[in-house]
Amino acid sequence: MDLKSSIIEAVTELFQMFGLNSYFKEEIYEKHQFIGEQVNVLIGLTENIKGNVIIGFKKSTASQVISAMMGGTEIKELDFMAKSALGELANMALGSAIMKLNTEKVISLSPPTVVVGEDMSLTVSGNNSTKLIFNLNDDIFNIIIAID
Amino acid sequence: MDLKSSIIEAVTELFQMFGLNSYFKEEIYEKHQFIGEQVNVLIGLTENIKGNVIIGFKKSTASQVISAMMGGTEIKELDFMAKSALGELANMALGSAIMKLNTEKVISLSPPTVVVGEDMSLTVSGNNSTKLIFNLNDDIFNIIIAID
Repeated sequence: MDLKSSIIEAVTELFQMFGLNSYFKEEIYEKHQFIGEQVNVLIGLTENIKGNVIIGFKKSTASQVISAMMGGTEIKELDFMAKSALGELANMALGSAIMKLNTEKVISLSPPTVVVGEDMSLTVSGNNSTKLIFNLNDDIFNIIIAID
Repeated sequence: MDLKSSIIEAVTELFQMFGLNSYFKEEIYEKHQFIGEQVNVLIGLTENIKGNVIIGFKKSTASQVISAMMGGTEIKELDFMAKSALGELANMALGSAIMKLNTEKVISLSPPTVVVGEDMSLTVSGNNSTKLIFNLNDDIFNIIIAID
């Protein structure tokens, strides 16, 4: 399984674990520059896969996901705990995706960074980058994968 | 030498190589949440040091640095090439800082991601995070170091 397929599978399964119904919708090839979402969770990959993965949510979608992770607690604002939960989600999703690659090669993840703002642009390095769009209930979120 | 001291030394030397006169000014302890600058370059660290380093510039300062890297070429806008140069700068600075640690332990760097925008907030994980402020001519830039 390649990294893209394993991320799609891992994210779908993880969201399902939290009672969230998500599915992969489409892939958009955008090369190196992306418009950021309101909430972006970045994780770097090193060793045998070098790159970055960025999960992007609208604030409302992020709140919905965090609420599901916290057993339905209403999320009024994206405080530190809420952002940490999103970081942990990304960590779990990528950890699971790497397991699915079923390789003995070492692939390491950097700790997540959560970037919140409006109208931001994200520039990734690497030769091979893509944006995966997922449906989540009536909403969407996306995952940028950039591999060197 | 610890990571903080080695980053300060590496950045100062690197900027000097490009004819830029920078010096470390002060350290601000801000725990896990930081106000982003207009231009932020993120690099993740894995293996024996897990964390993230974020170099933050105002757009005008970033342009000044890129111009110096490109032998004085005037930078009118932060296009892909300009942002790639900043990513490469961060890569060089951290590579050099890790050499200065003089350890045989493996420390890996993820490829840089450049995030440009206004009024963004950055949330890092880890128990130990700090912001280093540097002077650069009449301006300042900063480096956030967050270690798990």
